[in-house]
Amino acid sequence: MENVKAYGVQSETAELDLLQIDRRDLVATDVQIDILYCGVCHSDIHTARSEWGPAKYPVVPGHEIVGRVTAVGDEVTKFKTGDLVGVGCMVDSCQECSACKEHLEQYCENGATMTYGGADKHLGGHTYGGYSEKIVVDEKFVLSVPENLDIAKVAPLLCAGITTWSPLQHWNVKKGDKVGVIGLGGLGHMGIKFAHAIGAHVVMITRSPGKADDAKMLGADEVLISTDEEQMKKHANSFDFLLNTVPVGHDVNPYVTLMKRDTTMAMVGAIEPLDAVHGGLLVSKRKNIAGSMIGGIKETQEMLDFCGEHNVLPECEMIDIQNINEAWDRVVKADVKYRFVIDMKSLKGA
Amino acid sequence: MENVKAYGVQSETAELDLLQIDRRDLVATDVQIDILYCGVCHSDIHTARSEWGPAKYPVVPGHEIVGRVTAVGDEVTKFKTGDLVGVGCMVDSCQECSACKEHLEQYCENGATMTYGGADKHLGGHTYGGYSEKIVVDEKFVLSVPENLDIAKVAPLLCAGITTWSPLQHWNVKKGDKVGVIGLGGLGHMGIKFAHAIGAHVVMITRSPGKADDAKMLGADEVLISTDEEQMKKHANSFDFLLNTVPVGHDVNPYVTLMKRDTTMAMVGAIEPLDAVHGGLLVSKRKNIAGSMIGGIKETQEMLDFCGEHNVLPECEMIDIQNINEAWDRVVKADVKYRFVIDMKSLKGA
Repeated sequence: MENVKAYGVQSETAELDLLQIDRRDLVATDVQIDILYCGVCHSDIHTARSEWGPAKYPVVPGHEIVGRVTAVGDEVTKFKTGDLVGVGCMVDSCQECSACKEHLEQYCENGATMTYGGADKHLGGHTYGGYSEKIVVDEKFVLSVPENLDIAKVAPLLCAGITTWSPLQHWNVKKGDKVGVIGLGGLGHMGIKFAHAIGAHVVMITRSPGKADDAKMLGADEVLISTDEEQMKKHANSFDFLLNTVPVGHDVNPYVTLMKRDTTMAMVGAIEPLDAVHGGLLVSKRKNIAGSMIGGIKETQEMLDFCGEHNVLPECEMIDIQNINEAWDRVVKADVKYRFVIDMKSLKGA
Repeated sequence: MENVKAYGVQSETAELDLLQIDRRDLVATDVQIDILYCGVCHSDIHTARSEWGPAKYPVVPGHEIVGRVTAVGDEVTKFKTGDLVGVGCMVDSCQECSACKEHLEQYCENGATMTYGGADKHLGGHTYGGYSEKIVVDEKFVLSVPENLDIAKVAPLLCAGITTWSPLQHWNVKKGDKVGVIGLGGLGHMGIKFAHAIGAHVVMITRSPGKADDAKMLGADEVLISTDEEQMKKHANSFDFLLNTVPVGHDVNPYVTLMKRDTTMAMVGAIEPLDAVHGGLLVSKRKNIAGSMIGGIKETQEMLDFCGEHNVLPECEMIDIQNINEAWDRVVKADVKYRFVIDMKSLKGA
């Protein structure tokens, strides 16, 4: 067992501060990782502040982890010391249920072990995330990161990336499809980049005309202002797929009117009640509203490989760990373009 | 042009009464039908009372029509005088849009012509439905009714039947699947019969323990009382498909908890706002909420053929047209097991 430095909170009202946490000794299938970068996800804040149910304190957040392998267990076959790797939202799952067998560990019927706040099967207590120097993870939950990518920007792919990539794959979005991305934050900006890279005709759908320039810079072909009734009418029944990244409950009915018959709007942001959906809108053209949660490990690797091939990366604002409290305040105000990444070198000297 | 007897309403507050309406002379592709039976659908009432938007009066309702062919146009190839036929909710569509080309006339992009209250392309004005002696319909919208069926009971298949059959087909419900049917009325009782005939394990889901015996008689393997938390927990995440026939807005969240990962709940009854759906329920197991509207003509024929082969028929209460106002009152109170069918002989002497 090794004692390492981390940043976390001790209660739901506390600021993040320096902590010492334990990392386990390697078992045969483990990979030890020196963390180089960790992305900042809004989930970190929701969890730390007990907004998604009571948290287990201390909370050490962080599930967008990029680092180098520093040691491997005896039975590890996929990784060796020095490899560039990533860890996302999960560090374990049962491997036996139908979801795990279908490479959908995120839907594990026995409950996947989340990277932070999950039940720690090795040390007892609960898991600690990537706002820390090191992490030890079973190789099945370690991703290989293409070396050609700018590694300072890779981290957000592990959550924001896979959360938007997976629904585009699952609902079979392909070249030429008209895809709407609703909401332009950490998730939305990756949705635009991926849909564009796949070759879709990408329409950024937003209430804020001020986001139009950014959306086009990120790869949107068009911007649709959802408060403009004329524009909304023009696009009615025309979309092949909608990716809804809005992080709070909202009225989805105007978006449902945009969908073609037999298409889906996938919710990936709002983990709370949506305003009343009109049944008639679903019935009249056999439309679907669905949800999607991150992605499986196999799919996450495919996404990283795709990003390596097409050089797809998030827009990142780099911070030192000492500035994390200010960064969280800005995330809450949606004042970030489009994802904070912590340079974990800053923790070494802390 | 022929003047025939019908029953209809002259305003949204009027009772149904005897009317005279015009039926067109046959064009080359037309089939003239002597109406023997007409089912009573809750839509008839919603429309006649302008509950779904302002109606065009007089309204002559009825879109569950069974009768005998009495004449055919020169180019009619599928039918001859004497054939037993049916007409459902539609009597025309553009035949050119992508929906029509996929045999999904109910989703016609130019708007299918509904059997009553639609724009009449031949006589001008609007279409009149099956509460009448005769109807003239393009052969493409006429269904062949298997002669082995008890023809007094066939009519409700043309709307209640296809409305429940189509989603079971579209979402690929098959032998051994665990299917929940929510709500036990005209639609729900057909949902149970079809799911049972397909070989599914059918669970009737209801708030009313008093419906259990009927549900089992109709083919349900189990009855789940949705207000019983213990029972609901036992069935959580276990259903392969849910057919939601509840005809009004309601809280669907308890039903969503019943669904397995990657399954669908199809709404077929509630043409109004549903209570707020919790995004987290959709996200956590990639669940879908969809709508479905009646079915295409090809699929309706397949359903009728299936009913002929498996002798599947609705439970009907026969009435004379003179009792229609009382029947409508009972439909509104959900006091019918499970569909009224008008014996149109009663109109002859009226």
